Amino acid sequence: MTEPGTLTQQIKWNKQGLVPAIAQDWQTGEVLMLAWMNSDALELTISEGRAIYWSRSRQALWRKGEESGHVQQLKELRIDCDADTVLMKVDQVGGIACHTGRRSCFYRVVEDGDLRVTDEILTRPDEIYGKESSTNKESSTRKEPSTGKEPATGKQP
Amino acid sequence: MTEPGTLTQQIKWNKQGLVPAIAQDWQTGEVLMLAWMNSDALELTISEGRAIYWSRSRQALWRKGEESGHVQQLKELRIDCDADTVLMKVDQVGGIACHTGRRSCFYRVVEDGDLRVTDEILTRPDEIYGKESSTNKESSTRKEPSTGKEPATGKQP
Repeated sequence: MTEPGTLTQQIKWNKQGLVPAIAQDWQTGEVLMLAWMNSDALELTISEGRAIYWSRSRQALWRKGEESGHVQQLKELRIDCDADTVLMKVDQVGGIACHTGRRSCFYRVVEDGDLRVTDEILTRPDEIYGKESSTNKESSTRKEPSTGKEPATGKQP
Repeated sequence: MTEPGTLTQQIKWNKQGLVPAIAQDWQTGEVLMLAWMNSDALELTISEGRAIYWSRSRQALWRKGEESGHVQQLKELRIDCDADTVLMKVDQVGGIACHTGRRSCFYRVVEDGDLRVTDEILTRPDEIYGKESSTNKESSTRKEPSTGKEPATGKQP
């Protein structure tokens, strides 16, 4: 054991005090999503044993699954060689990481210069979040829970 | 087929014109590293069929493996739901992605608040890059090839 905060002191946070955090299915190895953590999020992820991110738009902690129920239970947490990226192996509750109702956020593959959707929607977002969830919900966009934006389409905002 | 540039127009680049790009072993699913791409790097990655990143310190394109030989041959490229992260499945030539000579950059696991190294060095960096490579080389740090820094230790700079 080391002093509390020792780990977070070793991380190379960016100018916004954040690092990217990758969530990977602990059994299949599938990459589920990438979001961001600040030092509080990282410490809470470890202490609570579940993925907790920092919502850049809300400027608030985001306990993944807080509305959807799709919690990511932490199995392992790794840091890369230059200590500016986090990799988590998680047990994805409900089998859905993406706010679109798909297993992974990486459901589009580049083919011939265009994007092709490869993964099916397992549960419709309105079933996950409720029909009244168009604003101020985790569903509005995976990484930016409370902006009230429509789900991202891959277009420039 | 779509017009050239259509894909890059759909990406939500950050203020520096970059997105994080994850490289994952196409066969084992192991996450090998995370680096950054600008639009040129993404287009070249697709057209050349190998991972090409943007070195933030050099402010230059970085063809992964250009000095080490550890090229990442592109098998598949995906974009996430809000189009601000790239996921590549790659064939890692030489079986080494990390500048430390390890298979993956995520060779340290958090245990009891501290970092424990789990993966062995497969080839020593001086054997990969040569003993005269302490400056201006890919070896100096994985993501920032030409800064002349020592390999990252996980400490704050």
